[in-house]
Amino acid sequence: MNATMPHTQIPEVLISEVGPRDGLQSVKATMPTADKKRWITALYDAGLREIEVCSFVPAKLLPQMADAAEVVKHALTLPGLTVMALAPNLRGAQAALAAGVHKLTLPVSASAAHSLANVRKTREEMVDEVRNIVALRNEIAPGVKIEAGISTAFGCTLQGDVPEDEVIWLAAQCIAAGADESGLSDTTGYANPAQVRRLFRRLRAEIGSRAGAAHMHNTRGLGLANCLAAYEEGVRTFDASLGGLGGCPYAPGASGNVVTEDLVFMFEAMGIRTGVNIEKLIAARAPLQAGLPGEPLYGMTPEAGLPKGFFQGTVND
Amino acid sequence: MNATMPHTQIPEVLISEVGPRDGLQSVKATMPTADKKRWITALYDAGLREIEVCSFVPAKLLPQMADAAEVVKHALTLPGLTVMALAPNLRGAQAALAAGVHKLTLPVSASAAHSLANVRKTREEMVDEVRNIVALRNEIAPGVKIEAGISTAFGCTLQGDVPEDEVIWLAAQCIAAGADESGLSDTTGYANPAQVRRLFRRLRAEIGSRAGAAHMHNTRGLGLANCLAAYEEGVRTFDASLGGLGGCPYAPGASGNVVTEDLVFMFEAMGIRTGVNIEKLIAARAPLQAGLPGEPLYGMTPEAGLPKGFFQGTVND
Repeated sequence: MNATMPHTQIPEVLISEVGPRDGLQSVKATMPTADKKRWITALYDAGLREIEVCSFVPAKLLPQMADAAEVVKHALTLPGLTVMALAPNLRGAQAALAAGVHKLTLPVSASAAHSLANVRKTREEMVDEVRNIVALRNEIAPGVKIEAGISTAFGCTLQGDVPEDEVIWLAAQCIAAGADESGLSDTTGYANPAQVRRLFRRLRAEIGSRAGAAHMHNTRGLGLANCLAAYEEGVRTFDASLGGLGGCPYAPGASGNVVTEDLVFMFEAMGIRTGVNIEKLIAARAPLQAGLPGEPLYGMTPEAGLPKGFFQGTVND
Repeated sequence: MNATMPHTQIPEVLISEVGPRDGLQSVKATMPTADKKRWITALYDAGLREIEVCSFVPAKLLPQMADAAEVVKHALTLPGLTVMALAPNLRGAQAALAAGVHKLTLPVSASAAHSLANVRKTREEMVDEVRNIVALRNEIAPGVKIEAGISTAFGCTLQGDVPEDEVIWLAAQCIAAGADESGLSDTTGYANPAQVRRLFRRLRAEIGSRAGAAHMHNTRGLGLANCLAAYEEGVRTFDASLGGLGGCPYAPGASGNVVTEDLVFMFEAMGIRTGVNIEKLIAARAPLQAGLPGEPLYGMTPEAGLPKGFFQGTVND
């Protein structure tokens, strides 16, 4: 493929593919390392330029991620790709930085209950962890970007409502602790478009251009509507997962993350350039299915195909 | 159930359930009349106050609709319900008016190719048919409302692109021919939110308050995002189908109409009152499934359930 694009084809939104991390850690099966590499390459070939390739967590807890460093090593061979990984704590961040990632995402729960359940830390303790990770980054890898993803920002399956003031406060605390950006995650699929607009507007008012990605789930079918609402509030980075990989254990049969294929189709159909070729994106389902045989995939656009006469202005090859 | 609602619970949007017509005529099996009646009653009990209960078409063409008059007769027993039916021509309209419907919807294709394929008439001939149906209504049932639903308004599986000027022209022609309102239908699942906003804005500029419902499909997953876009342009009536019944033959495995359960959840979660009780709406899937055993239903909210602590202000009993 040809990585150069005419000026008019510069993407207007960044689709950040999280399937290799968020998707793979949510399914029981472990995808073999060689398949992960093939899948990541196929995602890259479709035009994706930010991929969350793994998380750095103890292999005892998440055996699916035991090969994280090797996966990062492969992803680093793809020119122009921002290689992203999740780290829940300082130890994970150390390993991720040692592996050479370009960007780290740290999950910081807005729900007090979820924070304790997920990382065994209070929210204040997690902000301290962000500060420690920033200090480490400054020391050993100052070029690496750090994003604090505020999870359960739109509601929590443990505590229900999450006060909006606490979400915005926490994002501001993470920025004050040195994170480069902070986005909002609908971990539980509770968000609605009015809430998405309200919270991203407040986030931008609070932390300005450090407001980061919208990470939406499709648990109740509102994933794309929530992305549209976020877009209209000025958000330009959207997390999504190929085939919607990443089922929520609390919602059997319901898909998890926003489906990359449908999200890219929505933006492209609206005339908003993503830099992603939809047909190649759909083709990237093959290595995913090869590496996770029998795993159900979601997504309407791959089933229906593209509309008759649909022309994608962004074809980047 | 108690049909009176406090003033604050007056619905802000009208969800027009089209499953008994659009859904049932799209599936191969014929639902027994007794099951149709039970299903319609369950939809009514959930708070739906406009239901498209059938279409008046030759039984040879659509045996699923052979009991249309009997279904209308039952629906007319439900107080406060607007009983709606589709009629593709004057003969169908005669039968519908004789059966006592409150509202008639006439499908008028914006795509020249689809118009010929669907009703064997040019668009101009179909406008003449609208005029004839209006004359008949004026003579024998002046209280009945007539809606011209502009189908393939966002693109066509036969001809591809449908010029927006022609869509708006056709809607204006239908209003000039005497239709009370004209809405836009994404028959093929081609619509995107930017196009939805543009077309409904133009429609409103052209025919003002006679702009009618948004009839969106979910073929490529954009159904709710398109409804959100239409809402933001001032649309307040939305067609939807319980369980997304109504698969598109051109999109195997893809659902057809916007799923009523997810649409109602989206609006209610946004604080926009629908008058529909989501739990009772989900319960209305049981008589649908009883009458169409084995038919796949869609919808994420029924799978995932309501968020923890979710309170619906519109519970109307």
